Amino acid sequence: MDILALLESYEFEMKDIRRYLHQHPELSYQEKETSQFITAYYDKLGVSYKKILEGMGVVATICGKLPGKTIAIRADFDALPIQDAKDVPYKSKRDGVMHACGHDGHTAILLVIGKVLHECRDNLYGQYKLIHQPAEEVPPGGAIQMIHDGCLEGVDAIFGTHLWATSPVGTVSTRTGPLMAKPDNFTISFKGRGGHAAQPHRTQDSLLAASSFIVQAQSIVSRKVDPLHPSVLSITNFDAPHALNVIGDRCTIGGTVRTFQQDVQDIIVNEMKQLIEGIKLFHGVDVEFVYHEGYPAVVNHEEETHYLMKSAEEILTSQHVTQASMEMGGEDFSYYLQHVKGCFFFTGALQSGKTPIPHHHPLFDLDEDALLVAAKVLTKTATEYSREKATE
Amino acid sequence: MDILALLESYEFEMKDIRRYLHQHPELSYQEKETSQFITAYYDKLGVSYKKILEGMGVVATICGKLPGKTIAIRADFDALPIQDAKDVPYKSKRDGVMHACGHDGHTAILLVIGKVLHECRDNLYGQYKLIHQPAEEVPPGGAIQMIHDGCLEGVDAIFGTHLWATSPVGTVSTRTGPLMAKPDNFTISFKGRGGHAAQPHRTQDSLLAASSFIVQAQSIVSRKVDPLHPSVLSITNFDAPHALNVIGDRCTIGGTVRTFQQDVQDIIVNEMKQLIEGIKLFHGVDVEFVYHEGYPAVVNHEEETHYLMKSAEEILTSQHVTQASMEMGGEDFSYYLQHVKGCFFFTGALQSGKTPIPHHHPLFDLDEDALLVAAKVLTKTATEYSREKATE
Amino acid sequence: MDILALLESYEFEMKDIRRYLHQHPELSYQEKETSQFITAYYDKLGVSYKKILEGMGVVATICGKLPGKTIAIRADFDALPIQDAKDVPYKSKRDGVMHACGHDGHTAILLVIGKVLHECRDNLYGQYKLIHQPAEEVPPGGAIQMIHDGCLEGVDAIFGTHLWATSPVGTVSTRTGPLMAKPDNFTISFKGRGGHAAQPHRTQDSLLAASSFIVQAQSIVSRKVDPLHPSVLSITNFDAPHALNVIGDRCTIGGTVRTFQQDVQDIIVNEMKQLIEGIKLFHGVDVEFVYHEGYPAVVNHEEETHYLMKSAEEILTSQHVTQASMEMGGEDFSYYLQHVKGCFFFTGALQSGKTPIPHHHPLFDLDEDALLVAAKVLTKTATEYSREKATE
Amino acid sequence: MDILALLESYEFEMKDIRRYLHQHPELSYQEKETSQFITAYYDKLGVSYKKILEGMGVVATICGKLPGKTIAIRADFDALPIQDAKDVPYKSKRDGVMHACGHDGHTAILLVIGKVLHECRDNLYGQYKLIHQPAEEVPPGGAIQMIHDGCLEGVDAIFGTHLWATSPVGTVSTRTGPLMAKPDNFTISFKGRGGHAAQPHRTQDSLLAASSFIVQAQSIVSRKVDPLHPSVLSITNFDAPHALNVIGDRCTIGGTVRTFQQDVQDIIVNEMKQLIEGIKLFHGVDVEFVYHEGYPAVVNHEEETHYLMKSAEEILTSQHVTQASMEMGGEDFSYYLQHVKGCFFFTGALQSGKTPIPHHHPLFDLDEDALLVAAKVLTKTATEYSREKATE
Repeated sequence: MDILALLESYEFEMKDIRRYLHQHPELSYQEKETSQFITAYYDKLGVSYKKILEGMGVVATICGKLPGKTIAIRADFDALPIQDAKDVPYKSKRDGVMHACGHDGHTAILLVIGKVLHECRDNLYGQYKLIHQPAEEVPPGGAIQMIHDGCLEGVDAIFGTHLWATSPVGTVSTRTGPLMAKPDNFTISFKGRGGHAAQPHRTQDSLLAASSFIVQAQSIVSRKVDPLHPSVLSITNFDAPHALNVIGDRCTIGGTVRTFQQDVQDIIVNEMKQLIEGIKLFHGVDVEFVYHEGYPAVVNHEEETHYLMKSAEEILTSQHVTQASMEMGGEDFSYYLQHVKGCFFFTGALQSGKTPIPHHHPLFDLDEDALLVAAKVLTKTATEYSREKATE
Repeated sequence: MDILALLESYEFEMKDIRRYLHQHPELSYQEKETSQFITAYYDKLGVSYKKILEGMGVVATICGKLPGKTIAIRADFDALPIQDAKDVPYKSKRDGVMHACGHDGHTAILLVIGKVLHECRDNLYGQYKLIHQPAEEVPPGGAIQMIHDGCLEGVDAIFGTHLWATSPVGTVSTRTGPLMAKPDNFTISFKGRGGHAAQPHRTQDSLLAASSFIVQAQSIVSRKVDPLHPSVLSITNFDAPHALNVIGDRCTIGGTVRTFQQDVQDIIVNEMKQLIEGIKLFHGVDVEFVYHEGYPAVVNHEEETHYLMKSAEEILTSQHVTQASMEMGGEDFSYYLQHVKGCFFFTGALQSGKTPIPHHHPLFDLDEDALLVAAKVLTKTATEYSREKATE
Repeated sequence: MDILALLESYEFEMKDIRRYLHQHPELSYQEKETSQFITAYYDKLGVSYKKILEGMGVVATICGKLPGKTIAIRADFDALPIQDAKDVPYKSKRDGVMHACGHDGHTAILLVIGKVLHECRDNLYGQYKLIHQPAEEVPPGGAIQMIHDGCLEGVDAIFGTHLWATSPVGTVSTRTGPLMAKPDNFTISFKGRGGHAAQPHRTQDSLLAASSFIVQAQSIVSRKVDPLHPSVLSITNFDAPHALNVIGDRCTIGGTVRTFQQDVQDIIVNEMKQLIEGIKLFHGVDVEFVYHEGYPAVVNHEEETHYLMKSAEEILTSQHVTQASMEMGGEDFSYYLQHVKGCFFFTGALQSGKTPIPHHHPLFDLDEDALLVAAKVLTKTATEYSREKATE
Repeated sequence: MDILALLESYEFEMKDIRRYLHQHPELSYQEKETSQFITAYYDKLGVSYKKILEGMGVVATICGKLPGKTIAIRADFDALPIQDAKDVPYKSKRDGVMHACGHDGHTAILLVIGKVLHECRDNLYGQYKLIHQPAEEVPPGGAIQMIHDGCLEGVDAIFGTHLWATSPVGTVSTRTGPLMAKPDNFTISFKGRGGHAAQPHRTQDSLLAASSFIVQAQSIVSRKVDPLHPSVLSITNFDAPHALNVIGDRCTIGGTVRTFQQDVQDIIVNEMKQLIEGIKLFHGVDVEFVYHEGYPAVVNHEEETHYLMKSAEEILTSQHVTQASMEMGGEDFSYYLQHVKGCFFFTGALQSGKTPIPHHHPLFDLDEDALLVAAKVLTKTATEYSREKATE
């Protein structure tokens, strides 16, 4: 029985695992039960693994009997602080915590891939590292620590997917080069001089200073960045909880910057700083600017991406494998790609005829047929890449 | 002994009363103990009074034996939700409540005026209504209800003062016509469409809409209002507590409008509405605009103001009685002036050589020598006005 | 015959002179014929005069036989570069030049005042300097040079009026202290880096920088200046004549600042400079800021203003003499008031029932009955002030 | 001798033609002499042609003896209203007119291609239409009329190039899909109510309205357009030539919009309209918005682009043929691509080691070695495409 057929035979198990995890979500850096679920699964199979990242990360290793490259596949497994609002039997059993991004599916896929690789190990070329990573949702992300703890040792290439609830099930998409943006956050505190709202001339109005920053900052993306280089500067937060007749001492705003290139990020940050200096002069305020670097952009390697797309086309036919557009969202899979070659891709999980519900939404759900698609593409890509590259 | 000399003899009592009240401040609409303190004082003197405004307002009446007009004098007696930060023996004994606006002094002045008027009643022309009003600090203010409950019945003229901690003790100032502004408040809620901060084009950004409102609203005062008509539009509050990677559904701002004339207020409110309509169109948001009318402007009557200034000049010499500049702050004394003629004035209470500390500040204090000044000016003005106008 | 009755008898002559001058307007610093008209008039009367300000200014002197103070009366006589659009027999005969501000009337009034003072000189107290000043409309204005050339030598007080086509004929208004604003002008040049309009990121966009200045500058008047201190900052000019597909190197804006107090002007200019520094930082432009100080504010002296208002009340009854509101327009009469005491006032010249047409408008006209009113008020004030103050 | 070798032998002639045309530039729609130069060249060769577009456009036809497809090659030949500031022997001889965009080179290339195709016609597959188009620089552009007049009749595919003075000579770049943007222009007139600059409250300030439009319009690109869809909105022109003390009645601004997709253009135009409606409400102005649609985006066809890149790689080696980034500038070659399949590409013309000088600059020049590169790529692509597709 070939390995893809074997996967098909475990499709129901994969869906069951996903549903179990869906009912038992855990927040980032708190995924103890999920981690135990994973190790219990491998224990039962007799697959060896290492626990890293303070015992929450799991790296299982499967060695084929035949010579080949070492390939890593990564799945993340944390959930989000969102209240599940779906009315389904597998609804989250934990108040305010929900697998609203599909990481439950990622984990189910990788566990079953582990099972079939293990069962086929006698005829398998190369080695496989199955990286179960916690804490993808919350900076700094689990990937840095997983890598620091050695999960990429000896790895030749890495692959990973994100189930994508806004693309049709039965499709796969990715692209060479930048795929997902670098998501940075920032806060800016404006400290003026408070006073009576009837006497603005005796104050330094920090709220007006911040509002003026927000309005003027629009021209950073519109005028300062090359229009061919995608970027976003969103100010999402404004905190100025003052009485209506009191001009407060200070206020704080915050938001996010999304870019694909370091030079674009540099322009945006530099222009924000220049604007802040100007605001300080005119509005007479002090300003504290705190910038938190997010994950790097996810940048796919050319050869590995072609490999993956070719494998996917063989499984799905070429019309279901498309060039992805870049996404302004971020992913800490990027760190792995800074260390080894590889490709990250989107696996469509939108049920035909349904209206897409965005990730991180209280009604988010997956079409579970996507699980088998992703599992097949990952398995075929990993095993063939390992074998074909064996002699390089 | 003449009535002003009698007042002088009670100066220490007046200061003692003020210090007692300073230690026992009560918030607006909760001034039960202060009200009881006032009635107990009159009970002891044998002065009759009525309790109105749900028993918290007190109107004492003293009838001279000689014919004359009926004159009201008003003092307010509520305190503020501020933590007293002074290090003095008479510091507030109540956590988070403080007489940070001098209403304790106003009350002490009026009680002692009552005492001397009562003692002199056999030689006194006219009648005197001593209006002790709660709740000046919080809209809608106590004055409306006091008037509704009859405190101005039969009154021919009214006088009142505010101890003014930023003018030198020993001075009095006021002006004919508008003296203090109409203080209105407003809130504006912007409802857009939330979404991921990396995809601004799929949202309607209510935070940018509100910021744009704030920046553009500056041109209402700068361009739309006659530069000779003083006005203030301050936005002081901004509430948009969203995560840094989420564009929220909505946000709210608020602030205050200060004017002296109805037509200026109308222009400002109308321009705010026009701006809101424009913001709705461009930013695709819904907007809820709630405008709370504050007290009317305090507008002094000409003859009564001349009377008061003349009396003050005789007490203080003319160089200590000045033309007040208009103040952008509000006072519900304005309601009384809409019903009867009268004058409101400022009595300097800044100790010589000290740096002024603004009203409503945690370190606010009075130079208590101001109490006697105010008491004399009010008593002289009231009694002479009553006598001289007797035959009109 | 008393001096005011004598004035009445010359009313028609006064109107004739005004109409002659109205047909023969001359621009500022070019008023040769008007100057000759004035000296010819005095020559015919036998009144002595001096020609100053390069021969265009005229100062006639009339000495009463009786002792008294030396009083100056000033009238300006330049016209404006406006095309007269009225359809009247006395319409301007010069294309593009028009007495659209009433200086023709001012001159007619002063000439006839000269005639009656001269005729009455045997019974007259004091001396009279009749100051005919060119070039009021164009900075730096004629007043500075007239004063430099000695027109105020020996003068004890000065009076002047402006016919005011938006107030009813038969009224006079003025006020103690600031009456007319200080009108300053400015230009601001923004120098960026030009380029192709499709590549904004390779340019420094001076046009956006200037627009941002204009929008932000609104908060100077709205937030930085005491709302009780009237001020105006108007940007009226924007010069950026670039092709639609070219971002130009530079652009220029300009406008005016109006204030009554030096400290308010200082605040506005300083805030403009701070805003410019901020704009330079964020928009990467160089900026040249040129500020032209205009005439000082017209500030009336207290005693002379009371004198004038009392005289006017005796002529017009008190209900026709009103407290003027301050005017944001400027007048170089202010320079005279910096050297000697005096008062400037407005004489209503709006025909009853007519819609006001503003000064400097192509359809501007005067109700000529105003001429006699102004002449009487000036003559009565000047002669009585001179006589009554004789012994001071 | 093969056709590319033949081209090499005429390299000097090609450069000579370019230099002659460089000295004799003509503005768009006035290119009579250039048109005559072209026809004279073909007359001398004995190549037949048709004159269209009012006699200024030239379409020469060369028929190979062998069967094949009909291929068009297009070159534009108008110059720009720029003063040539170079110091070279072939400098423009016409004041204020200059070939500052390389159309002289385009014409030289196509004429010599015509010569070699003609000379090789006996061994040539297919037919060739050599389209010499006037007026590319000025909307509506010559292409529409050329097509209307039949230049594409029977044509199977079209190719064209732009010499690109900011890319190194010896390189070629292009891309499938959108290559050059749609360049639309617009003007917006704001009509307010003028008045005295000291009385802004009596006016509707059109200049502030326009400035506010410019500042707010920045958020169209920054917030309303998908960050992955390149777009530009530049306001380049501001016309408000008013006196410094006069608020004018009206002002006008103008600029350009650049997009690659109709839906993006629609969003931008719609948002501009919404913003205008908002500005009208708040600033009380009337607004006239005139939008001039420019050329469509240049969108290359996939197969023809691959053909061209393959041919170019064979001539230049693959490292000199690169994926072009999209350009925000426009080209009316787009119209041809709406009718027939084809590809437009950039031929590097920057001399090694030189600093790039942008197109439309007074110092613009070409490295003339680019002429042969472009000629070879066009000729090889056209002839091989014609032959290989012959049987389709």
